[in-house]
Amino acid sequence: MLVVMQQGATEEQVQNVIDRLVDLGFDVHRSTGVMHTVLGGVGGKTDFDLAMFEVMDGVKEAHRIVSPYKLASRSFRPAGTTIRIRDLTIGGEQVVVIAGTPAADQIDRCAAIVAEAGAHILHALGDEKSLAEARAAADRHGLFVLAEAAEVASVAQVSEHADILQVAARNMQNFALLRELGKRPRPVLLERGLAATIEELLLAAELVLQGGNYNVILCERGIRTFETYTAATMDISAIPIVKKLSHLPVVADPSLATGRRDKVPAMARAAVAAGADGLVIEVHPDPDHASVDGAQSLRPDQFSELMGQLRMIAAAVGRTL
Amino acid sequence: MLVVMQQGATEEQVQNVIDRLVDLGFDVHRSTGVMHTVLGGVGGKTDFDLAMFEVMDGVKEAHRIVSPYKLASRSFRPAGTTIRIRDLTIGGEQVVVIAGTPAADQIDRCAAIVAEAGAHILHALGDEKSLAEARAAADRHGLFVLAEAAEVASVAQVSEHADILQVAARNMQNFALLRELGKRPRPVLLERGLAATIEELLLAAELVLQGGNYNVILCERGIRTFETYTAATMDISAIPIVKKLSHLPVVADPSLATGRRDKVPAMARAAVAAGADGLVIEVHPDPDHASVDGAQSLRPDQFSELMGQLRMIAAAVGRTL
Amino acid sequence: MLVVMQQGATEEQVQNVIDRLVDLGFDVHRSTGVMHTVLGGVGGKTDFDLAMFEVMDGVKEAHRIVSPYKLASRSFRPAGTTIRIRDLTIGGEQVVVIAGTPAADQIDRCAAIVAEAGAHILHALGDEKSLAEARAAADRHGLFVLAEAAEVASVAQVSEHADILQVAARNMQNFALLRELGKRPRPVLLERGLAATIEELLLAAELVLQGGNYNVILCERGIRTFETYTAATMDISAIPIVKKLSHLPVVADPSLATGRRDKVPAMARAAVAAGADGLVIEVHPDPDHASVDGAQSLRPDQFSELMGQLRMIAAAVGRTL
Amino acid sequence: MLVVMQQGATEEQVQNVIDRLVDLGFDVHRSTGVMHTVLGGVGGKTDFDLAMFEVMDGVKEAHRIVSPYKLASRSFRPAGTTIRIRDLTIGGEQVVVIAGTPAADQIDRCAAIVAEAGAHILHALGDEKSLAEARAAADRHGLFVLAEAAEVASVAQVSEHADILQVAARNMQNFALLRELGKRPRPVLLERGLAATIEELLLAAELVLQGGNYNVILCERGIRTFETYTAATMDISAIPIVKKLSHLPVVADPSLATGRRDKVPAMARAAVAAGADGLVIEVHPDPDHASVDGAQSLRPDQFSELMGQLRMIAAAVGRTL
Repeated sequence: MLVVMQQGATEEQVQNVIDRLVDLGFDVHRSTGVMHTVLGGVGGKTDFDLAMFEVMDGVKEAHRIVSPYKLASRSFRPAGTTIRIRDLTIGGEQVVVIAGTPAADQIDRCAAIVAEAGAHILHALGDEKSLAEARAAADRHGLFVLAEAAEVASVAQVSEHADILQVAARNMQNFALLRELGKRPRPVLLERGLAATIEELLLAAELVLQGGNYNVILCERGIRTFETYTAATMDISAIPIVKKLSHLPVVADPSLATGRRDKVPAMARAAVAAGADGLVIEVHPDPDHASVDGAQSLRPDQFSELMGQLRMIAAAVGRTL
Repeated sequence: MLVVMQQGATEEQVQNVIDRLVDLGFDVHRSTGVMHTVLGGVGGKTDFDLAMFEVMDGVKEAHRIVSPYKLASRSFRPAGTTIRIRDLTIGGEQVVVIAGTPAADQIDRCAAIVAEAGAHILHALGDEKSLAEARAAADRHGLFVLAEAAEVASVAQVSEHADILQVAARNMQNFALLRELGKRPRPVLLERGLAATIEELLLAAELVLQGGNYNVILCERGIRTFETYTAATMDISAIPIVKKLSHLPVVADPSLATGRRDKVPAMARAAVAAGADGLVIEVHPDPDHASVDGAQSLRPDQFSELMGQLRMIAAAVGRTL
Repeated sequence: MLVVMQQGATEEQVQNVIDRLVDLGFDVHRSTGVMHTVLGGVGGKTDFDLAMFEVMDGVKEAHRIVSPYKLASRSFRPAGTTIRIRDLTIGGEQVVVIAGTPAADQIDRCAAIVAEAGAHILHALGDEKSLAEARAAADRHGLFVLAEAAEVASVAQVSEHADILQVAARNMQNFALLRELGKRPRPVLLERGLAATIEELLLAAELVLQGGNYNVILCERGIRTFETYTAATMDISAIPIVKKLSHLPVVADPSLATGRRDKVPAMARAAVAAGADGLVIEVHPDPDHASVDGAQSLRPDQFSELMGQLRMIAAAVGRTL
Repeated sequence: MLVVMQQGATEEQVQNVIDRLVDLGFDVHRSTGVMHTVLGGVGGKTDFDLAMFEVMDGVKEAHRIVSPYKLASRSFRPAGTTIRIRDLTIGGEQVVVIAGTPAADQIDRCAAIVAEAGAHILHALGDEKSLAEARAAADRHGLFVLAEAAEVASVAQVSEHADILQVAARNMQNFALLRELGKRPRPVLLERGLAATIEELLLAAELVLQGGNYNVILCERGIRTFETYTAATMDISAIPIVKKLSHLPVVADPSLATGRRDKVPAMARAAVAAGADGLVIEVHPDPDHASVDGAQSLRPDQFSELMGQLRMIAAAVGRTL
């Protein structure tokens, strides 16, 4: 914590800031320069509001000097986290592919298609009936299951069938849900919010980790920018950044990010080339007649061709698929 | 609905698009130009995915030619909506001020302060104990009560005490919550999401209106941009835009938008000057020692001075306060 | 300057950072905490690249602790800068209105209209012929002249006729132009770039000030965001922020920002209510038949009505117009 | 061109819009629906201001139905443009690598390093002395030369030494410069502006093409978003989008986009995986002691390792490097 006082700040103003820092548990170091007095705070709380200092009289600027997340930071686990679900490892050498469709009536055909193309996990809907059918389909085809936990009340039910619980972008800051997911070791796939910085994504993950659940996978699925050609702008650079800042695995969802089937293969390849630990991709047996999200779903032949390209790119970055 | 085919699109591609339009209930008008064939669709469904057409073979562009919201549009009620809560009218000549604090222990003092300065509605916390106390404090000081309904499960309970139910920005696209709020006539204050366009805000309001509840107030509270000096960038232009596009009242929250007390008065004045029907402002008896959100809360003397300025600005735009 | 080392950074890595800081002229203070070593640098250069430290081995974060601008900062002239052009003062009690049209053939009629409505400065085109005519029209109607200096080569010529030289948003980081404008005392109106932060705007102003020209007026004219309803999103909060960070006057251009005539009055009122020292507004005798920019130009009656409203709002914030 | 009238628009308002369309050279088709009258315009001008219609009385919405660029669109040259510079082809099967440094004193060592690693073009500074030296260095090492043309006045001089003229992002809408570059066949590398949409980039290219110069290469180098971890957010999806919308080659600059050396390799790989026709990368013999831009320059060993990875990724997408 670092507070820079304005030129000409009074001794009383400086003292008020020191008092506030001490209240928050900081040891305070004062250094007086030609132009500015600078107050450094060490060892205090991390969950305070920086703006509280910025509006105090005589204050010029305030900076946090350690990230407000700790359990999610790379230094907490320098070697990186790998998540095991039976024989599957997420965050290791293998790039993991999650594929599926929100069109519930096609889930078995879809499972057959994606399994044959080499995907590992089936993306299913979270409602009870769809999920039970998806589980059965996944088991028939040797797949694991990812499904959304949309609210606190549905966590237990979805946990019965799904191997990984998905938190959708709009719920990234649903603190009650994140705390609930922290209570059980079930792996969580946490999507970045459309307006969330990378730091905010890591802070959201921190909440799950604080509950004791370290099995968190982060998911880049696009941020909102002024470019309107795509549904969102996929921030590929978030992948290497998260890998440096955090020990958690990171995957990418080009279907949600682009919203258009014809852009999905290029962005899926880019994500793997940039170091993603996995992908979430929508596939449908007949997307032109899908009941939902057809525009962003790949056809089976497109998915199969893409998997071939991804294998070569994974090899180029020292991984398998 | 309008689809522009690529130059050289085949007759089969054109026919596929026509078939899809007919499936969606459109009457199709075809016009063949020198460069492009253009298909116009009239009278079909409004809740389809535009991208579905954009990914079809031979399609160059697709445009929606009527807004996907209808009940929320100005043409539905050209004279504008006014919301009555006993003797208070929102959306009329009077600019309405909602003020309060999330610091529950100060709610009675806060109610006294804001009532004396001329505010109309007390902004309270939504948990049961705080809300009951806020209701009592509001009644003592002649104020109405606004409180957040954070999830479907709490709508009924918050409705017992609050005159207006607030939907926070992060819940703007919580469709289950919006549908629940549509079932009862209780007024709703719907905050714009940090990454939501004005059209998306109106679409969210449409969901409440579809349930039969027309008492919806829209709230501009900042959007996320590259400027990081403030918590969010308050989009003042959204105020006159919403007034033109929709019949619903629109208010602004400069406390949330700026996150800093010293910027709140300027932005509150700007909102009223731009035509806002009301304001939401955080006030605290002693913000430097507030348990939460102190940085963005005005001191009582600041709030009182601001109310005086707002009265003059309201008069300049032909309104009262 | 403050560098936070990673946990476990080696002594050699720390030493490398210290050496780099010393190279840049900093006195270095080292403080060793339980988790992090923090290096504070005082008194060195201000124009270095922060990322240079961020990519060094063992470095976690680097922060600048004084703003990289100095002459433009409020502390340099706490009382604020006022710019005098004969009997007109910009940055004082009076709100100054600059109005005009880029349609050269209408400049005399336009000058008559805006002068009668009470504007102070005529906004003219910068090419030689138009500018000479605008100067004559302005003189006839008792107005001053603002015109764009689009490149280094045209500064001298535009200076012959114009009282204030405008730097358009796209030139905000045209360093050669800014340096040229610093060489003479002629007032400069510097527009914020569409993608520029407030800090970058102040840094651009700093370049003009470094040349010795302190007569700089800053202009907010919208930033690019995801909201596409308007040409740009006018960042009204930039007005009080600039007034706090800098001593320079700040004006706003609602015509450029919104791109639509029907939104200009609301945004002009908002800017004055937020504390702007002036406005730039496009007006045209007959905008529906204007050769350029008709959509964003006010009609004479609209401008006149707006000026009446602005006078009342100026009074509400303790100013005149 | 398509104009949707408001419900209840008068016959006079409809007629005014028709008159305006006819003035612009459109054939007008009128269709009257239950709710809206829709006016379609075919064959008129393309360089008008859409907002001109949006502010007319009775108008609800206006849409452009053909892209405002024509020469730059894919349909103009469906097979794609390839640019030949002696034995080098840009936009063909081969991925082209442009590498260099703005540190003029290291240009010969830099040329040796990048040539040995397999790059094709040397990125040099545009001032006369540096450029002559860069040309000599490039010739010694069998490289071509890219250098910036910063203003109209320097185009002729830079053309003497450079094989490709670069237009920097801040000049993307410098229309005088673009027109000047259209007058000669020398290849142009046009960077996307920080706040420019893909459509605006193509419109800027259109200006060069209109002059008769079809040798234009587009360059994605990051857009400004709310994420501040990187200098800009590299919009990788722009690569497949530009390839679909336009026939022009597209390259990417991960050094400018990220501003940090440690993120450059991942983003370079992503760009090639997404289909880029080339890369611009900064390399320096000793970046930690570079006079400028050291933070974003790769070390020679990093560049060489990256080139190896890029060759494998190029192969995965059916190309060479």
